[in-house]
Amino acid sequence: MQPSSRGIRKAKADLQAPVRVAIVGASGYTGAELLRLLSVHPRAAITMATADRSAGRLITDVYPQLAPLSGVRFAPLNPAAVARQADVVFVALPPGESTAVVGRLLAASRRVIDLGADFRLRDSRLYPRWYHWRHRRPALLRQSVYGLPEWHRNRIASARLVANPGCYPTAILLGLAPLVSRGLMAPKGPIIIDAKSGLSGAGRSANLAFQLPEMHESLEAYQIGTHRHTPEIEQELGRLAGRRLSVVFTPHLVPMSRGLLATIYVPLRRALTTAQLRSLYRETYATAPFVRIRDDGSANPKYVRGTNLCDIGVTVLPRTRQAVISSAIDNLGKGAAGQAVQNFNLMMGWPETLGLNLPGLIA
Amino acid sequence: MQPSSRGIRKAKADLQAPVRVAIVGASGYTGAELLRLLSVHPRAAITMATADRSAGRLITDVYPQLAPLSGVRFAPLNPAAVARQADVVFVALPPGESTAVVGRLLAASRRVIDLGADFRLRDSRLYPRWYHWRHRRPALLRQSVYGLPEWHRNRIASARLVANPGCYPTAILLGLAPLVSRGLMAPKGPIIIDAKSGLSGAGRSANLAFQLPEMHESLEAYQIGTHRHTPEIEQELGRLAGRRLSVVFTPHLVPMSRGLLATIYVPLRRALTTAQLRSLYRETYATAPFVRIRDDGSANPKYVRGTNLCDIGVTVLPRTRQAVISSAIDNLGKGAAGQAVQNFNLMMGWPETLGLNLPGLIA
Amino acid sequence: MQPSSRGIRKAKADLQAPVRVAIVGASGYTGAELLRLLSVHPRAAITMATADRSAGRLITDVYPQLAPLSGVRFAPLNPAAVARQADVVFVALPPGESTAVVGRLLAASRRVIDLGADFRLRDSRLYPRWYHWRHRRPALLRQSVYGLPEWHRNRIASARLVANPGCYPTAILLGLAPLVSRGLMAPKGPIIIDAKSGLSGAGRSANLAFQLPEMHESLEAYQIGTHRHTPEIEQELGRLAGRRLSVVFTPHLVPMSRGLLATIYVPLRRALTTAQLRSLYRETYATAPFVRIRDDGSANPKYVRGTNLCDIGVTVLPRTRQAVISSAIDNLGKGAAGQAVQNFNLMMGWPETLGLNLPGLIA
Amino acid sequence: MQPSSRGIRKAKADLQAPVRVAIVGASGYTGAELLRLLSVHPRAAITMATADRSAGRLITDVYPQLAPLSGVRFAPLNPAAVARQADVVFVALPPGESTAVVGRLLAASRRVIDLGADFRLRDSRLYPRWYHWRHRRPALLRQSVYGLPEWHRNRIASARLVANPGCYPTAILLGLAPLVSRGLMAPKGPIIIDAKSGLSGAGRSANLAFQLPEMHESLEAYQIGTHRHTPEIEQELGRLAGRRLSVVFTPHLVPMSRGLLATIYVPLRRALTTAQLRSLYRETYATAPFVRIRDDGSANPKYVRGTNLCDIGVTVLPRTRQAVISSAIDNLGKGAAGQAVQNFNLMMGWPETLGLNLPGLIA
Repeated sequence: MQPSSRGIRKAKADLQAPVRVAIVGASGYTGAELLRLLSVHPRAAITMATADRSAGRLITDVYPQLAPLSGVRFAPLNPAAVARQADVVFVALPPGESTAVVGRLLAASRRVIDLGADFRLRDSRLYPRWYHWRHRRPALLRQSVYGLPEWHRNRIASARLVANPGCYPTAILLGLAPLVSRGLMAPKGPIIIDAKSGLSGAGRSANLAFQLPEMHESLEAYQIGTHRHTPEIEQELGRLAGRRLSVVFTPHLVPMSRGLLATIYVPLRRALTTAQLRSLYRETYATAPFVRIRDDGSANPKYVRGTNLCDIGVTVLPRTRQAVISSAIDNLGKGAAGQAVQNFNLMMGWPETLGLNLPGLIA
Repeated sequence: MQPSSRGIRKAKADLQAPVRVAIVGASGYTGAELLRLLSVHPRAAITMATADRSAGRLITDVYPQLAPLSGVRFAPLNPAAVARQADVVFVALPPGESTAVVGRLLAASRRVIDLGADFRLRDSRLYPRWYHWRHRRPALLRQSVYGLPEWHRNRIASARLVANPGCYPTAILLGLAPLVSRGLMAPKGPIIIDAKSGLSGAGRSANLAFQLPEMHESLEAYQIGTHRHTPEIEQELGRLAGRRLSVVFTPHLVPMSRGLLATIYVPLRRALTTAQLRSLYRETYATAPFVRIRDDGSANPKYVRGTNLCDIGVTVLPRTRQAVISSAIDNLGKGAAGQAVQNFNLMMGWPETLGLNLPGLIA
Repeated sequence: MQPSSRGIRKAKADLQAPVRVAIVGASGYTGAELLRLLSVHPRAAITMATADRSAGRLITDVYPQLAPLSGVRFAPLNPAAVARQADVVFVALPPGESTAVVGRLLAASRRVIDLGADFRLRDSRLYPRWYHWRHRRPALLRQSVYGLPEWHRNRIASARLVANPGCYPTAILLGLAPLVSRGLMAPKGPIIIDAKSGLSGAGRSANLAFQLPEMHESLEAYQIGTHRHTPEIEQELGRLAGRRLSVVFTPHLVPMSRGLLATIYVPLRRALTTAQLRSLYRETYATAPFVRIRDDGSANPKYVRGTNLCDIGVTVLPRTRQAVISSAIDNLGKGAAGQAVQNFNLMMGWPETLGLNLPGLIA
Repeated sequence: MQPSSRGIRKAKADLQAPVRVAIVGASGYTGAELLRLLSVHPRAAITMATADRSAGRLITDVYPQLAPLSGVRFAPLNPAAVARQADVVFVALPPGESTAVVGRLLAASRRVIDLGADFRLRDSRLYPRWYHWRHRRPALLRQSVYGLPEWHRNRIASARLVANPGCYPTAILLGLAPLVSRGLMAPKGPIIIDAKSGLSGAGRSANLAFQLPEMHESLEAYQIGTHRHTPEIEQELGRLAGRRLSVVFTPHLVPMSRGLLATIYVPLRRALTTAQLRSLYRETYATAPFVRIRDDGSANPKYVRGTNLCDIGVTVLPRTRQAVISSAIDNLGKGAAGQAVQNFNLMMGWPETLGLNLPGLIA
């Protein structure tokens, strides 16, 4: 076998003390995926997993898949108890419910990774407009660091509060950043983003529309022009571009459980070949362990399912001088829990890949 | 056809003699969908169904679903026999294989509806470029009528040779025609078309990539910038617009069996509201029995599965002055066999909806 | 019903006046499948479709698939109005809710086909034990005829009240009757029935367990030994056998939308070959238009999806002298609405197949 | 958090030298699952992965999911090279192809875990009858140890050649062994086994019948009475019972990718309650880290997907004095690659769970 095989990295445990972590809102899909990843993380010790409705139940009663957590129970949400028992807290609450909890945890000097939307937007006026609620602690927005490690590693490392990006923004920003940060986009017209997501991205709750007989041959755009991730995408693209940018963002639900694919259409400022653009992407992400630039133009979420990877396909269409970017993640992985663990690793000063270098299911 | 075929039972609308029809290439999904629709058509009598590899086999051995055709067998492909036994011939052969057969049928004064690509493009030079074969009978291209009934009813009625549109072009052209034919598109930039199709659109053949374990959480763009339906879409849009138009067309495969959704992004020449644009679409299709303009902006192929309907959603995004058009069909229905039967009805001078006013499966 | 309902278009078989039918409980999957089938039935005119929660809504708002019913609205449930407007009433209400409604319809001299369980069991004491409610009109149980046409054609023809069989009992009884009615079963031991159903059989309601992310790789037995269809199966098998019979009945949910397969294990009284047993099944069902005995031992619900067919596979295992019967139906078709329409045809004195001789979807 | 949380076990690496392992036939689903598991095993170093048709290709070109193996290539199958580079060899070749390769590896003093059927049956005469080929090295059958760790731990520990059980036999034997080994089965009649498997169990090859449009609403029994796992099941049950036992074994394909469920019907010799039987199962498997007895009677493969677990549900039906056993595994996990790694751990004298204590995907 080739020498490269020696390089197969594995989760190495060591003799250092683990860091105590809590998960607030641990019974939804995002929370449960955090449980899955943290249960095998070599340096984290899960000391509390809260879930108000399931408090007192065994985690494995709700998720028998989480066998390594056998015997552990969900706790009720008590911020003081959380602050006492954990050094780092992952918060995975519904939109608008994080603010108060996070405020108390920060006040108790805990470091927080919030997986909701409460701390992602810097301009608090965007909340009433896109989320239909008013932000109660706008001052905290200035403290929070947007947790896209590939572009904000250093700031994340020292952050007290990380706002973990949304699933769609993650795939989209990773797919667009190399182009946008270099000003390769033509000035005219918006960027068109056509995104497709599996159902787990819609959360875990009883919904007639998501029953299998309703979904199994179903495919539909939703919230056309009004999806809440739009201002988040525009905010971050604007930072990368150094100017305001507009996007047309259309999410779709596809009959899958996990996986998210964004197909992005960008008019180019100047003629580039596919090979040139792919090289530029490869360079940009040369030191990003979780981004893979595909050899062909396509990316497929099945290849990153269960992992923290983002696969990116890059094609230039010379006839219309457009770039078509295809960016695939696992919405619960790099789009939520995986990225949160990556941020956790950076905050602790550990290798970014610690506990995340997992293969995906091959079928 | 074998004596057993006489036994095909149908709901007969009246006492007039049926028209004898043959299906050439009847064992693929498109051919079989033709069998399904024509087996219950009140005026058609299927007198021959050819399938070279399955010749001699009972249709219900290959497709037990086609119970009304119990006892009927696939025949080998013999153009002379087809011409003898049928007045109208549906040809559903792989790309490039129709030309010779159709030439002989036309020579024998049969009327033909070709469901392949051999007669869709008017400029024969496009075949080597997009299909990688040279057209052997370019003269026939001038005889063929593009079979999109909503826009070419009269020409179809008198045609000897109808080129049934591709599945993607059908959804896309119906979705774009009201805008494009009125010149409402801004002159700058291409139209962006992001299309998603179920697997049956890829035909019926053993392919590792389409096995259920490979497909069930899979979602991928394919043939980015090179799909063969591109010149067909541009040809027909150009006719509607009265000028050359370019599109960026990206098809995707989604883990569904049937169904096709096109999400189309059009920069508008002037400010329009969603309500205005929807009205314009409703007017345009007021007399089109198979086009439905949805009350909201979304369309979903599950609602048209098994039917000849095309559902269209229309949304205007004022922030970016873009229209987002959502167009859904059944790729085997309005995208292939259903539309062919609609063309057949027009050619016979019957109501467009004859035999096609079927409800879809509700789950 | 609103004037718009007059516009329901149908393939009309002849000039005779249609029979007025109502569907009570028309918004669940069974009710909607009745709408689908009756909307194309050549002799039925749907004059009312009740759905309490959806009253006033357009049918096509809830089920856009039912395009032939465009313009028709769901009505509130008012038994007097139903009795006034319909000659035959299909009742598709949840268990226990039919009794009162059906009583009033019968009192008003309407003929009723009840698709629920309220009139299937002849011994009213079985209701508290298996259904956990007490039957309020046990006298009606004696009037009702068990609506399995292949075995009770004549009694159904003259019935005022037909109890349409459950989905599992339909597949199981059709699969077992040829054996059991001839006493070919060995006296020892129970019959083992392992049945698998798609999710639509569980009804249309929001249920966390049936969300696509919960179901897509899910497969589970449920209500082992306690399913309510057990006494119905034993009652009818007992009648066929002329003696008490016990079954072990284990239903499973599989990640499908439609379809039901029962695999049935019967110890044989004497040695029989597969060919002999298949012949016996073929003979038994020679005049049953909806039962097909497969040439091999297997049956698959995909081949009967959307139809009123029951496919049966028959195999004898000589090593253990067991028959393995495989019986497949569409749970909403022959397992519910299709069979109800078949019963309707018999009650009206029409051909059993009227409006039901439909091909299934080929993909 | 509860003290139990401290017990969360993680993959511990240590400073000892890894064992060199090779996978022969690494490009099929079983081989690739071995790659997945061994790539994160703390003591194994994959030194060779052969795949004749894919030789020279990067593993991640075929399976991009296996990111930890980035840069490693499939090698051609050369038994001498395998023997040189590996101490333990996993062989995952099609039926009948292992014999020669394994013979040479054993001759070179390598230890072998064979995942095919070539070494599972002790009576070589069963091969022509059930597999339709003649065993070329019957002497090796006496050397091989049947690799069901829960029942043969000690013999596996010292084996040179382990015959890894089939997927169906694994679920079935684990489900039946507690009953059968204690003679709790009634003497009359065969055990009825109704098993259901996802498609990945059928291997990775292009097959029209397994295309998504053919499978997505498909459900079917296959090889009724003739499946090759039958003699394997009867052989091992006979050993446990100390007498010949017959089974009726009917496998089904369900529209899933991974997962296997066996529902097993056993007539009991004497009256037992469900609670008693469950206790007996719990006792039996008290020290088996991968077997879980469910609190209710059902097991579901979704809860063990991607793991080496076997979930077992136990119910007694007093009416018919039957036990219904529900046994669920991941066909590629405990049904193939996971169990092979468990056997590997035993052969090396390591904890059985080393590298296998992984949580499953939660959606």
